[in-house]
Amino acid sequence: MKIALAQLNYRIGDFDKNVAGILEGIARAKAGGADLVVFAELSVCGYPPRDFLEFDDFIEKCYKGILRIAEECTGIAAIVGSPSVNPADKGKPLYNSAYFLADGRIQSLSHKTLLPNYDVFDEYRYFEPNRLPYEIVEYQGSRIAVTICEDLWNITDDPLYVRNPMDELLKLNPDMIINIAASPFHYSQPVDRFNVLKRNAMTYGIPLFYVNQVGGHTELLFDGGSMVINPAGTLVGSLKRFEEDFRVFDSQALQTGYVKSPLSESVISLIHDGLVMGIRDYFHKMGFSKAILGLSGGIDSAVTLVLAAEALGRENIKAVLLPSKFSSEHSISDAEGLAQNLGVERETISIQESFNAIETSLEPQFRDQPFNLTEENIQARVRAVILMALSNKFGYILLNTSNKSEAAVGYGTLYGDMCGGLSVLGDVYKTQVYELAHYINREKEIIPQNSIDKPPSAELRPDQKDSDSLPEYNILDKILLKYIEERKGPRELILAGFDEKIVKRILKLVNTNEYKRYQTPPILRVSPKAFGMGRRMPIVGKYLS
Amino acid sequence: MKIALAQLNYRIGDFDKNVAGILEGIARAKAGGADLVVFAELSVCGYPPRDFLEFDDFIEKCYKGILRIAEECTGIAAIVGSPSVNPADKGKPLYNSAYFLADGRIQSLSHKTLLPNYDVFDEYRYFEPNRLPYEIVEYQGSRIAVTICEDLWNITDDPLYVRNPMDELLKLNPDMIINIAASPFHYSQPVDRFNVLKRNAMTYGIPLFYVNQVGGHTELLFDGGSMVINPAGTLVGSLKRFEEDFRVFDSQALQTGYVKSPLSESVISLIHDGLVMGIRDYFHKMGFSKAILGLSGGIDSAVTLVLAAEALGRENIKAVLLPSKFSSEHSISDAEGLAQNLGVERETISIQESFNAIETSLEPQFRDQPFNLTEENIQARVRAVILMALSNKFGYILLNTSNKSEAAVGYGTLYGDMCGGLSVLGDVYKTQVYELAHYINREKEIIPQNSIDKPPSAELRPDQKDSDSLPEYNILDKILLKYIEERKGPRELILAGFDEKIVKRILKLVNTNEYKRYQTPPILRVSPKAFGMGRRMPIVGKYLS
Repeated sequence: MKIALAQLNYRIGDFDKNVAGILEGIARAKAGGADLVVFAELSVCGYPPRDFLEFDDFIEKCYKGILRIAEECTGIAAIVGSPSVNPADKGKPLYNSAYFLADGRIQSLSHKTLLPNYDVFDEYRYFEPNRLPYEIVEYQGSRIAVTICEDLWNITDDPLYVRNPMDELLKLNPDMIINIAASPFHYSQPVDRFNVLKRNAMTYGIPLFYVNQVGGHTELLFDGGSMVINPAGTLVGSLKRFEEDFRVFDSQALQTGYVKSPLSESVISLIHDGLVMGIRDYFHKMGFSKAILGLSGGIDSAVTLVLAAEALGRENIKAVLLPSKFSSEHSISDAEGLAQNLGVERETISIQESFNAIETSLEPQFRDQPFNLTEENIQARVRAVILMALSNKFGYILLNTSNKSEAAVGYGTLYGDMCGGLSVLGDVYKTQVYELAHYINREKEIIPQNSIDKPPSAELRPDQKDSDSLPEYNILDKILLKYIEERKGPRELILAGFDEKIVKRILKLVNTNEYKRYQTPPILRVSPKAFGMGRRMPIVGKYLS
Repeated sequence: MKIALAQLNYRIGDFDKNVAGILEGIARAKAGGADLVVFAELSVCGYPPRDFLEFDDFIEKCYKGILRIAEECTGIAAIVGSPSVNPADKGKPLYNSAYFLADGRIQSLSHKTLLPNYDVFDEYRYFEPNRLPYEIVEYQGSRIAVTICEDLWNITDDPLYVRNPMDELLKLNPDMIINIAASPFHYSQPVDRFNVLKRNAMTYGIPLFYVNQVGGHTELLFDGGSMVINPAGTLVGSLKRFEEDFRVFDSQALQTGYVKSPLSESVISLIHDGLVMGIRDYFHKMGFSKAILGLSGGIDSAVTLVLAAEALGRENIKAVLLPSKFSSEHSISDAEGLAQNLGVERETISIQESFNAIETSLEPQFRDQPFNLTEENIQARVRAVILMALSNKFGYILLNTSNKSEAAVGYGTLYGDMCGGLSVLGDVYKTQVYELAHYINREKEIIPQNSIDKPPSAELRPDQKDSDSLPEYNILDKILLKYIEERKGPRELILAGFDEKIVKRILKLVNTNEYKRYQTPPILRVSPKAFGMGRRMPIVGKYLS
């Protein structure tokens, strides 16, 4: 049997676009001589649809989409993901289903059993897990075990679920597994995912056809990388990462040998490519083309600018220098150098007069209060007012340039440098931002070397350095990684050799700054544990704080 | 048997405080001659602990707290809520448990079966549902069915879960139900909850002892209202709403007659009391005492000010008038009148000079562009810069004064009037804000009548009225309620008699402004469907938009 994998970029709730894309995939599969074409999990509506799933109108539109797609399934079969109504009188109202379409109509449905509900996932919020007896999809003499994403992920030494659908499906003698997925990207996911899928193919001794969606959905990035693995655990072929792709495989010819391992991409190149796709999709799916950002001469805004220019085209970027009396010479020249290297439009708007006017209007209240954090924040906020004014007047989206280290410890001004429609680097630690800068400069100097070499500074008071307020980033980031990604507590961190005082101070900073992170823009997720929907913390509380 | 209900205000992760409070409750129960004292769900750590549950350190501290509490359980038994470790090698790592403590040690655990995972709830994110055979807790000759919150809520004609724990527990011949809960408040919850509990007591024919927690946890409010219901469905007695309380009941004397129904409180008085508690707990648990807010002369900031003064004391509030050239005479006099009526400190700081300075610095870019929404936003943002400067300099928390109608349709300026540490009215529709104003003025005029009577205006351009941009609030709010709270789609709304054009416009506004709401402060939740964690919507998407 010839099986086409269609790896598409859907748009949530845009049924016209999604159905049209699926119909195009069917036409292409027919033209390619495929017997069956496979689309991703919840492809008819895009993943994750979130609480739109609670609207009957939305579910009806999914069903109409499926019926429309079924009409075109003549001379070919298709597997399409969609929510479906749970007809039972008990349990959640929906299933997360794979529709099997052939001969112009719906032939059968397979429901997802394992509903991820950790990190960024909320599937048990909407769906009833499958409790029905499993069934094999028979088509053209093949016996297909149709599974949905997480259904294959309980094959581990530390299972999160009490059931394992493939163990039960195997009893029905399938001769292949098809898995439709919406498996979000983070920098270890390509390797983790390959290993899990390989383990399935080898354990069950049948080939595995895997279709993932691709594209950015606000903060959640999907890298695609759909693939076929044979029962020996060999990767027969894989589709592109971070792009739409389409390919037909012959289920009778899966021994054709070894294809490059998904391990070949470096973590930094994955992060880079993911961020570029994330920016592009955010803008295009929001209906915007132009970005604005404040360029400080520092490394974070420099890297953000380069990524934005790659994503949107340099002609669609405006970089704004917003100097105050604390801005150093080199900040201005580094920022200008970068804008010039990239060929993006730049403007310089001093914040000094606006800052002075605000200080003057506050004089009756502030009187003889000394300059402190308040004045630092005013500068950051005046910059935000100016950037947002340009954004509003000319239709730019403001890009946020904060990194994950800052976001973690609250080293930033709410409504100031924490503003923006989208945070590009909010899931990238400062030390990784440097790695990105080196990666960007790998062939020639795009980011001025001085932006990379100089000690980081917010330049909000004379001779300020980040290291006045924070431990060195190479220490800070290690502690943050252990606390945030690995969820180690203070005792474990101290046992790992970190200084007790520093550990306690950092954990306290992370926990007491939850109130700031609550109001940050959505952060493009590239790590296994990003701030945002995947990390849900109390604001008011008292733990390690 | 004498059973004490201890309704306490916990603080999430503050083990010292929570354990001390529980020990005090035990001492008080002993003094009151109780045989058993009952505390709320997850009382040892406070509810909801969210992702702190993923830290081993946190779980160990819960267990140590339980051991400490058990030591004091001599001559008395206690039921205390805590996470517990799932010892099985499959499934989620934790249970949501009720510890039964007596004779100085842990006697048994009962695990929660039904894990709410809708609206504001995420319990399946952390906990394995109980799949073990049920057991009765026997103590002093009584057979107790110990259940946890949601365990009693599947007793409905439209069950969300396939199991019903009490059906199984009943087979073990209990003679009472004890339910420990963390049941969040919204304005219909007191009635809904009483009806559900009453149905349990009557269906199973045994008395029900119910203990809820009380207090605000950021946006989530818990109203307490713990109660005892006898098998006839009569409310034997209930504890205070929105306050800590404690009471001992004799399980042999539950026929003592009818106590006032929980139906006696009006929706508006419930909202009022909930908001006051929410403000108070947010500030006190964050370690702050003083609030600042911008007073416009309009109804929203007026109501917010009154609620804040009730919560924190008038001496802890600073009201700031921030007039521009568009501010009307009556706005200033109404605002001053209110501040005077309440006796709160007020200041007036003009934003005109700061606004002018920003416009001047933008002149090279803006040149001959006409005054538009950009300049309206600049005014709102300059106000925010000034309020935040006062907040930073003097240690106030800024209160946000936006209402739910505005938040729904995006009628507000991000980083402007949408700023604040806490949104007081973000779950209160404009028409309900008027009701609150009338409720506040029920005995004498506190809010100037003119603030109530005049047409709402943002006063950001000459002669602006909200009705220039939005339908009248009495129409808008009805449509919003049906769309947001009742999840009706466009067809249902049009069938209900609303104008098609208005419906489509409003739904589009709600959906396209998700990006703004993503960055709003936490909103005190008083309705069954508040913006925030209980309503999870895509930002990038295209559905009804």
